Amino acid sequence: MTATEQQPTGSIGEVETRFLDLPGPLRLDCGRELGPVRVAYETYGELSPERDNVVLVCHALSGDAHAAGIAVSPLEAGTRDGFAAESRDGKRGRGLGWWDGMIGPGKAFDTDRFFVVCTNVLGGCRGTTGPSSADPATGRPYGSGFPVITVADMVRAQRAFLAELGIERLAAVAGGSLGGMQALEWAVLYPERVDAVVAIASTHALHPQGVAWNAIAREAIMRDPAWQDGHYYGTGREPEAGMGVARMVGHITYLSAPALEDRFARRLQDAPDIGYTLTEPEFEVESYLRHQAATFVRRFDANTYLYTSRALTYFDLARQHGGGSLSRALDAVAARTLLIAFSSDWLYPPSASEEIAAALRARGKTVEYHLIEAPYGHDCFLLEEPRQTPIVRRFLAA
Amino acid sequence: MTATEQQPTGSIGEVETRFLDLPGPLRLDCGRELGPVRVAYETYGELSPERDNVVLVCHALSGDAHAAGIAVSPLEAGTRDGFAAESRDGKRGRGLGWWDGMIGPGKAFDTDRFFVVCTNVLGGCRGTTGPSSADPATGRPYGSGFPVITVADMVRAQRAFLAELGIERLAAVAGGSLGGMQALEWAVLYPERVDAVVAIASTHALHPQGVAWNAIAREAIMRDPAWQDGHYYGTGREPEAGMGVARMVGHITYLSAPALEDRFARRLQDAPDIGYTLTEPEFEVESYLRHQAATFVRRFDANTYLYTSRALTYFDLARQHGGGSLSRALDAVAARTLLIAFSSDWLYPPSASEEIAAALRARGKTVEYHLIEAPYGHDCFLLEEPRQTPIVRRFLAA
Repeated sequence: MTATEQQPTGSIGEVETRFLDLPGPLRLDCGRELGPVRVAYETYGELSPERDNVVLVCHALSGDAHAAGIAVSPLEAGTRDGFAAESRDGKRGRGLGWWDGMIGPGKAFDTDRFFVVCTNVLGGCRGTTGPSSADPATGRPYGSGFPVITVADMVRAQRAFLAELGIERLAAVAGGSLGGMQALEWAVLYPERVDAVVAIASTHALHPQGVAWNAIAREAIMRDPAWQDGHYYGTGREPEAGMGVARMVGHITYLSAPALEDRFARRLQDAPDIGYTLTEPEFEVESYLRHQAATFVRRFDANTYLYTSRALTYFDLARQHGGGSLSRALDAVAARTLLIAFSSDWLYPPSASEEIAAALRARGKTVEYHLIEAPYGHDCFLLEEPRQTPIVRRFLAA
Repeated sequence: MTATEQQPTGSIGEVETRFLDLPGPLRLDCGRELGPVRVAYETYGELSPERDNVVLVCHALSGDAHAAGIAVSPLEAGTRDGFAAESRDGKRGRGLGWWDGMIGPGKAFDTDRFFVVCTNVLGGCRGTTGPSSADPATGRPYGSGFPVITVADMVRAQRAFLAELGIERLAAVAGGSLGGMQALEWAVLYPERVDAVVAIASTHALHPQGVAWNAIAREAIMRDPAWQDGHYYGTGREPEAGMGVARMVGHITYLSAPALEDRFARRLQDAPDIGYTLTEPEFEVESYLRHQAATFVRRFDANTYLYTSRALTYFDLARQHGGGSLSRALDAVAARTLLIAFSSDWLYPPSASEEIAAALRARGKTVEYHLIEAPYGHDCFLLEEPRQTPIVRRFLAA
């Protein structure tokens, strides 16, 4: 163990999500302009006088700006996924952020050293402008009239937001899953502004099975009559049924088959034998899915799910920036890059991180890749905080 | 190559599904009696005077009695799944059965030698009594009032049906997936009546991830308001939206990630670049899913999907017959057993077949296990017919 691993760690303490309105509209990849744009954000630690200690942390599909610390209003607690939801259910009452284990004094993103910033993504439903926000043209929520956004659009919004804070350069940009996509996009879009990238359980482009799972989740939402072509706000009906199914699909893809075996096996719920019911959950894993679905629909907006899912399936560094070549796409990268993948992650498999590492190396870039053997699937980036911590700390200390 | 592999093979020719009414009600695992019961079936080849050449072929979740040959009415063509649906779309117009490559003169189940029988399962929607059949108590379709059935109930219906044909003994019982479950159940329930079992891409109990996928598919159907608590018949509305999502989930679990990569990669549908649409399929794999969903809802009953999915998740030889021990459950088996699994099948993984083989060997039973390296996932049992054929032929010739 190195000294950095033995540091005592602490909590951020109480935090409150804040809001900032961008000074002008954003020009989006789809060609439309979006404005006004409000960004929800939290910060942890102190900005150095030189403004050179900023770490931007980017969240995943169902996350938000509350990455660390204790939310002043526990109802606004962060949004950990999958098995992580277990610890969330416990932590949520205490209002802990979705990456609280990684962000704080002495932690991976050490707030004794770094000024850590997290924003809710563009298109979000936790304070940043998204489909549930009012369209200035109509005064009513955008609904499905919200423009289709990309990961690059999310990054542009973050860039405009940081400029408002007077931050022109990032010591690091970090995230897992969709958050890792944003980190990689930052390094390509704004190479001169990023010193280091930390992309965990992420990819340069989701594989077709992942595209399919996302499409199925979106279909489940859009086929729910309560979705009403995306204009359900204020109607008293929301596509809860479809969102529940979408969430169930997501859950199972975030976990590994062995993790489910280990956790649930084929145990029945509160019964010695099968109950011969068509409609009720009987296996523990069925009950778990229903519970996760019910919890999720209460806290997340269906349209934000659709837009964010679309953005992450579009994400394709080689297509967007390299004319089909990943190494060409990454040619502009100036940042040092840290990639972490988990052996059991079949949604964002290690092979994707390995392809990024190989492409960066082929262009002579500085890249470090770690494969962590762990059983919990994609959710590992939220669960395996102790094992990621020394890797991230060493990388950021270099 | 052995001589058996070089035999010329042929088609069954035209076949017509027939129907037989069981003489009395069936006593089901759930405690209810079900009657009257009609069984839809097809036969291929000639029954020997000794009635000792019968092979019962059992179908999978979305299959039917039309296993081989050309349906007299092509609309009644069989029901091949997944990528197999591709060849089905081609074959369907010609009315070919779902396992036509395996059943016929000179084929794996050689109709020059065997009298091959296939029935639509109990609870089915292709001629056998199921939730869309009239409940004699009300004169209206059972809907969700149909009793919950098990794989053992399906087997009991087959047994009663065969007894009506004067068939008391099976030279073999064979099937893939849920069909393999039925074959294994036969060997346990009626050990004195089964000489050989052929269980392909099957399991003794679905693992919890498989239980979860099935639960999600059922949730998608039951959450569709058009399902109407299972009483949608005659209302002019059917849970097509939910069935479509269920089918999409099924499809992706039947295929492997590498097969999807190989087939679709991240290619866009008819477009050089992303189209920034929220609702329309853009990736080829998204289009493929929509097409499969649309095709499926036209030919399959949602309630039958629910009941059959429930039955296959209940199936658990160790729990039902061994007090939790698989080898104890298999102790009664007198049949020789052939198990075939496919390397890329993650829904019914090779490990399940290996567990069955080990349990049979532990009890001194005759068992042969083959692992076929093939990339198409669970669908291999419908696609890799040429590679299964010599294995099955040799096994049945022994």
